[in-house]
Amino acid sequence: MPQSPVIRAAYRARAAAAEIAPLPRSVKDDVLLAIADALEVRTAEIVEANAEDVARAREAGTGATVIDRLTLTPERIRAIAGDVRDVAALPDPVGEIVRGSTLPNGIDLRQVRVPLGVVGIIYEARPNVTVDAAALCLKAGNAVLLRGSSSASASNLALVTVLRDAVGGAGLPADSVQLVPGEGREPVRELMRARGMVDVLIPRGGASLIRTVVEEATVPVIETGTGNCHVYVDAETDLAMAVEILINSKAQRPSVCNAAETLLVHQDVAEAFLPLALRALAEAGVTVHGDERVRELAERVDSGATVVEATAEDWETEYLSHDIAAAVVDSLDAAVAHIRLWSSGHTEAIVTTSQAAARRFTQLVDSTTVAVNASTRFTDGGQFGFGAEIGISTQKLHARGPMGLPELTSTKYVVTGDGHVRGGPRPSR
Amino acid sequence: MPQSPVIRAAYRARAAAAEIAPLPRSVKDDVLLAIADALEVRTAEIVEANAEDVARAREAGTGATVIDRLTLTPERIRAIAGDVRDVAALPDPVGEIVRGSTLPNGIDLRQVRVPLGVVGIIYEARPNVTVDAAALCLKAGNAVLLRGSSSASASNLALVTVLRDAVGGAGLPADSVQLVPGEGREPVRELMRARGMVDVLIPRGGASLIRTVVEEATVPVIETGTGNCHVYVDAETDLAMAVEILINSKAQRPSVCNAAETLLVHQDVAEAFLPLALRALAEAGVTVHGDERVRELAERVDSGATVVEATAEDWETEYLSHDIAAAVVDSLDAAVAHIRLWSSGHTEAIVTTSQAAARRFTQLVDSTTVAVNASTRFTDGGQFGFGAEIGISTQKLHARGPMGLPELTSTKYVVTGDGHVRGGPRPSR
Repeated sequence: MPQSPVIRAAYRARAAAAEIAPLPRSVKDDVLLAIADALEVRTAEIVEANAEDVARAREAGTGATVIDRLTLTPERIRAIAGDVRDVAALPDPVGEIVRGSTLPNGIDLRQVRVPLGVVGIIYEARPNVTVDAAALCLKAGNAVLLRGSSSASASNLALVTVLRDAVGGAGLPADSVQLVPGEGREPVRELMRARGMVDVLIPRGGASLIRTVVEEATVPVIETGTGNCHVYVDAETDLAMAVEILINSKAQRPSVCNAAETLLVHQDVAEAFLPLALRALAEAGVTVHGDERVRELAERVDSGATVVEATAEDWETEYLSHDIAAAVVDSLDAAVAHIRLWSSGHTEAIVTTSQAAARRFTQLVDSTTVAVNASTRFTDGGQFGFGAEIGISTQKLHARGPMGLPELTSTKYVVTGDGHVRGGPRPSR
Repeated sequence: MPQSPVIRAAYRARAAAAEIAPLPRSVKDDVLLAIADALEVRTAEIVEANAEDVARAREAGTGATVIDRLTLTPERIRAIAGDVRDVAALPDPVGEIVRGSTLPNGIDLRQVRVPLGVVGIIYEARPNVTVDAAALCLKAGNAVLLRGSSSASASNLALVTVLRDAVGGAGLPADSVQLVPGEGREPVRELMRARGMVDVLIPRGGASLIRTVVEEATVPVIETGTGNCHVYVDAETDLAMAVEILINSKAQRPSVCNAAETLLVHQDVAEAFLPLALRALAEAGVTVHGDERVRELAERVDSGATVVEATAEDWETEYLSHDIAAAVVDSLDAAVAHIRLWSSGHTEAIVTTSQAAARRFTQLVDSTTVAVNASTRFTDGGQFGFGAEIGISTQKLHARGPMGLPELTSTKYVVTGDGHVRGGPRPSR
């Protein structure tokens, strides 16, 4: 028998997954409602554990923003419980017939959604991910192995304790929800190499975490990558709309993956658009990293914008701050070429009044999302109507873009005959 | 600029993929028809190159079966060309709207199928895979990088030359189809680590190849794994049907992945069923590796069957030969437990007259395919009506079971608004 705590946890998760996979939605929803209630009832216990983490973070000199992300208040716990109840209200993807037909020989073929099995989530920062991810995984019939940030270890332990008690109290195996045990990097490495026991890994966090997991894991990974998103303003455009979409994409919430990081402007509209854009960006407190043509125009305009020189690094940088790279391009195709070269493949927006331009941009751009006359900020499971989101995948296999409950499932085929055999006569029954 | 031939080939493939991704079906079909014609016109050239490979194999003392798989005759080339024309006749998955809706705020959301991009195929043996894989990839708008067996190197080079000439002659980039250059293992290793340039790897071959690729690749892999398939004969069953399905699953074509490798028999029907099964297996020339209860019964019956003792190794072995492991189980749930422990997750069949048993088995078994009263041999893209098959995936992400054209695609979202921004008023337009 394997001795490692991580492998033993994976075995327990596998056993739990086998038990919960066939459960109907009503049973799973009852568990989620029990979880929501338990979170509210045991708020004091969670807040107390969280206070330990916050105190440790303060002693370590952690910045105020990070401490705020780490902090769980009774209000926040109530909101988290509300989110769990929302997941209970969502349709169950498990059991959906994706496709079906009767084959020429009379066999009935069905492709049906099934749980993935054991989902591993490796995440940084906010402890509410512990609950959100567990709720989504359970709803889709999966067991979950959670590896959070060490800075939130007491909070995550308290939350998982509450989750496990609620799950077990509702009659399901408590091991449907587990923390990955052990300190340091070795447990994470074992988790990443546990192919066959863990069905998928979803890393959520910074580029460094994602890269490590993608490179080292033998377990299939869903890459939730960076968002080096672009806004392209076409020659034929509505100037006012372009400014609104630019500012919303960049500055409404700069620290998230669907915030725009680069502005591309068709040369034919640069003279008319850039002055408006620079002024608006200045008002929004955004520093512009401009190419030669942008800088040249900025010098002739009194916009109040801070404009610095863009280097190659700027084109590939996800600033996540009040900064934007900006360039004038010769054509729509040149914009597409720039995007192909530099984009992380998350979201690219075009603002245009030309139907042909919208169509061409949409055809040629290969990212998770192409936005036409809309902000890049809409790339979001909630905005897409999914009801919940486990992350935004920037890879092409299995899931691409915002991921909801169906992305936490696999499928299987069910073939039903009357004694059908290959190469034989069709049964007369 | 990177110097490696493999990386340069990947860059060329990427550029070709960008060019062919937006092409409509009619253009792609014309290319496929040109390929089919070219294969027929240049048959002599292909046969001549193939003769080199066959001669080398003979000198190396290669067995007759393998040499036969390696051999390309004019008839076989004609059949391959016919398969390419069949692919041209299939629907194009690219451009399919997977789902779409109008969001509450008026934004139109569409999820549309797009090519994966650059597909890498690493394969052993049969040179027709060179053409089949290229045709399927092209149809789905992908560029393909092919790495075949060194034993078929001259054949594959000749085939790819014909393919590239046909593709280029039809006005598409010849680099849509390339062989991975270079000798030995290093080019394959580079291909496997070319994440970001190659979008997916599909290894087709023996367990050792699959394992190497799965463990070493950073490029996403679709695992086409082994088929340790099971036939379970339930307490309530049609004995004659069970014998037919058993023999067809095991012996109709033992060397393929969807052939059955283990028979499980409910104890309540063992006395009635096993004598019939053993006689039929004996007639089919199949050696039975039986557990204690199977062997005990076999001794009391004059079946003519060769029955040897099964060890733990037998339960996990994919024989691909005239061998089958056999055990008597206490119950349906015991059969499911055995399958969970030993199966490679390919195909499991139940033969039963009980609707409840069929339902329970179908719910509890987690493999690519569950067959009810049908042979395991139906797990096949052609049989499922896909028109073509790139392989059978035994993994859970992206594709599971027989893979057709849609599995060679990804998706992207298209979000269309009228100037919509997050947190802002809905545009009045």
